[in-house]
Amino acid sequence: MTGLGEFALIARYFARPCAERQGVGDDCALIDVGAQTLAITTDMLLEGVHFLARAEPEALGHKALAVNLSDLAAAGAGPRCFLLDIAMPRVDERWLESFCRGLFALADEYACALVGGDTTRSAPVNGAAGAITISITAIGEVDRQHYRGRSGARPGDDIWVSGRLGEAALALAIRRGQREVPSPHREACLRRMDWPEPRVALGRALVGLATASIDISDGLVGDLGHLLERSGVGARLNWPDVPRAEIFRELDVASQQQLILAGGDDYELLFTAPPGVRHAIGALATGSLALTRIGQIDAAPGLRLLDGDGALIEATLRSFDHFASGS
Amino acid sequence: MTGLGEFALIARYFARPCAERQGVGDDCALIDVGAQTLAITTDMLLEGVHFLARAEPEALGHKALAVNLSDLAAAGAGPRCFLLDIAMPRVDERWLESFCRGLFALADEYACALVGGDTTRSAPVNGAAGAITISITAIGEVDRQHYRGRSGARPGDDIWVSGRLGEAALALAIRRGQREVPSPHREACLRRMDWPEPRVALGRALVGLATASIDISDGLVGDLGHLLERSGVGARLNWPDVPRAEIFRELDVASQQQLILAGGDDYELLFTAPPGVRHAIGALATGSLALTRIGQIDAAPGLRLLDGDGALIEATLRSFDHFASGS
Repeated sequence: MTGLGEFALIARYFARPCAERQGVGDDCALIDVGAQTLAITTDMLLEGVHFLARAEPEALGHKALAVNLSDLAAAGAGPRCFLLDIAMPRVDERWLESFCRGLFALADEYACALVGGDTTRSAPVNGAAGAITISITAIGEVDRQHYRGRSGARPGDDIWVSGRLGEAALALAIRRGQREVPSPHREACLRRMDWPEPRVALGRALVGLATASIDISDGLVGDLGHLLERSGVGARLNWPDVPRAEIFRELDVASQQQLILAGGDDYELLFTAPPGVRHAIGALATGSLALTRIGQIDAAPGLRLLDGDGALIEATLRSFDHFASGS
Repeated sequence: MTGLGEFALIARYFARPCAERQGVGDDCALIDVGAQTLAITTDMLLEGVHFLARAEPEALGHKALAVNLSDLAAAGAGPRCFLLDIAMPRVDERWLESFCRGLFALADEYACALVGGDTTRSAPVNGAAGAITISITAIGEVDRQHYRGRSGARPGDDIWVSGRLGEAALALAIRRGQREVPSPHREACLRRMDWPEPRVALGRALVGLATASIDISDGLVGDLGHLLERSGVGARLNWPDVPRAEIFRELDVASQQQLILAGGDDYELLFTAPPGVRHAIGALATGSLALTRIGQIDAAPGLRLLDGDGALIEATLRSFDHFASGS
């Protein structure tokens, strides 16, 4: 096995010059259609990788669409419709009913219609029963004049994040038996992992305010890294300001940093905006969704993690990469 | 396992009322964007179901995109761009290079850019190594005024088919060791299975001429059945007129009928058109692509298969359905 990671793999094989406005490498592809612009994104969920065979199908239906709507949210796009490819080893009607309940409840919430797809039976491979694989492509509409991707962050911009981070990663550790967390924190963490809420309304509201944004699927540091790289800038991140649940106070600092800074599956929005719009952005926070300033964009490349005194923290984080060596 | 088949499954769980112009159940979904209309389609290819682990990756890259472009061709859409989700057990750079060569050669032929996607590692499931799964979503542009789907066939229309049928199904039987076919017929059959040519130019040229069309992926009788059902009509099909390769003369009639009428993976276009445009359609045939009239649309529902004397043939065909009982 080669050490070529997921992002190097994409860059080497799949990123090619393209006549579209935006192609491989952002949360969404952008295609101009007459005077309008569509944002298109796709995500695949595999049994054994993204979910377990015993996963609750209703939550799985929700999550499969939610992770795609989260990409639309990052692009500030309004969901319009989606396509579903699903492979299953057999027709399990109880499973399908539950899966569809979760899928369509979220789809209906955003008036995002299922318009097409492909269903197929997954055959046994290498002697084992076929697995469930779900691939969704979601299509949204964006404002062509005010489109923001990952590349618009400018020195001096604030770095913001929605909600709080780390609970989905903690849930994974709970499920793997690596950590014990008392109720009701345990249930709160599992809910964050299984029922992510795509920040669609926030993503739309940030149109014209935020200069760049990305949804946090691979972890704060990793996804901020993508945004910085695409924008050609660096950043300071204030570790004490990064919003987290109370339960994290019980953990040692190294564990906190691993889960909160490098844990995936949060599906919060990470975005940048000039200081002049702080008040306007603050007004978008709601009782159930905090918006927090956690750092600042610098001209100097690289990501500097700072403690409460502004001193540099040396953190060793394992970030998420499907194909990284040894992962 | 329940006896619910693939199409019943789609109808029961996934076909819902939808504000888009056309949703689940046609070759493509249609969405209006301003004054323009896009056709969107998606197909999933699974190792062990649609291809074998030892399949040539270059051919696989070609075929994964070709089957989607074939759906666009059926809708008379011009390919515009596509998204690729791919899961692999490991990064095999030689495999990837070959896969991309096949994929992008076809993409470039139609100036159809890869604009996004998702790459992920397929983990071992149920104790066996992860499998390769490919899901492509293709987007095309259609003429809103002259769009044809599966529902426009009218009594009196001719039924046409492009190319010739059955060789891909014969190739499958060759690969499975069920049939022996001498060279060069053997290679011709395998090439039809591995390197299908999407009939994009024909699909575009039929805009304004054909009343309905579908690409033949599940077999002539099955796919014609979908078209008849959606159009609310029936048909007569003249068995001797159905175009086939010379090699089929060596086979008994039952085998011929099974392979030519019910064999999948042909990716030819099946379409209907009024007799008044026979000359215009005939002019679209080329040296390498025949167009053949094989029957006629009737008002009476059902599909009647006729021999050379116009007598009814009773053929028992096994058609392809991923979820049919016992398949």
